[in-house]
Amino acid sequence: MLKAIVTVMLKKGIFDPQGRAVQNGLESVGFENIKGVRVGKQLEIDLAMDDLESANDLVHKMCDKMLANPVVESYSFVIKEV
Amino acid sequence: MLKAIVTVMLKKGIFDPQGRAVQNGLESVGFENIKGVRVGKQLEIDLAMDDLESANDLVHKMCDKMLANPVVESYSFVIKEV
Repeated sequence: MLKAIVTVMLKKGIFDPQGRAVQNGLESVGFENIKGVRVGKQLEIDLAMDDLESANDLVHKMCDKMLANPVVESYSFVIKEV
Repeated sequence: MLKAIVTVMLKKGIFDPQGRAVQNGLESVGFENIKGVRVGKQLEIDLAMDDLESANDLVHKMCDKMLANPVVESYSFVIKEV
């Protein structure tokens, strides 16, 4: 079995209000030295398949079609055997 | 400067409705061989500091105090120089 770990983040330059809110929250409870925070998603997808290459193709399609919005988000993933 | 990459996921055994919704969505558009999906957060935190050890302590405190809910979530992070 394979597990794909997909990370979806807003592209650089796209304003990230959630990250800004987290930064404000951290600062409001006293944390210092924070230059910036960006928040994205991590998806762990268990796949009932064994071929790394076809899993790679499949996860690319999933990201392009549903998991990431290509206008404002970029994605990356790794696939590992479990 | 250092960048902390923090991953926050629901603990194993905690029902993840968002992951279930993503799995249903993927299946509804025709993707097969999906055994399960879990969705978490990834936070990228830019830190204006250079000492890895104190950054490590700081990020642990951030996670314990604000970024993760220890009742239902677990976190992990890596810190790299940028």
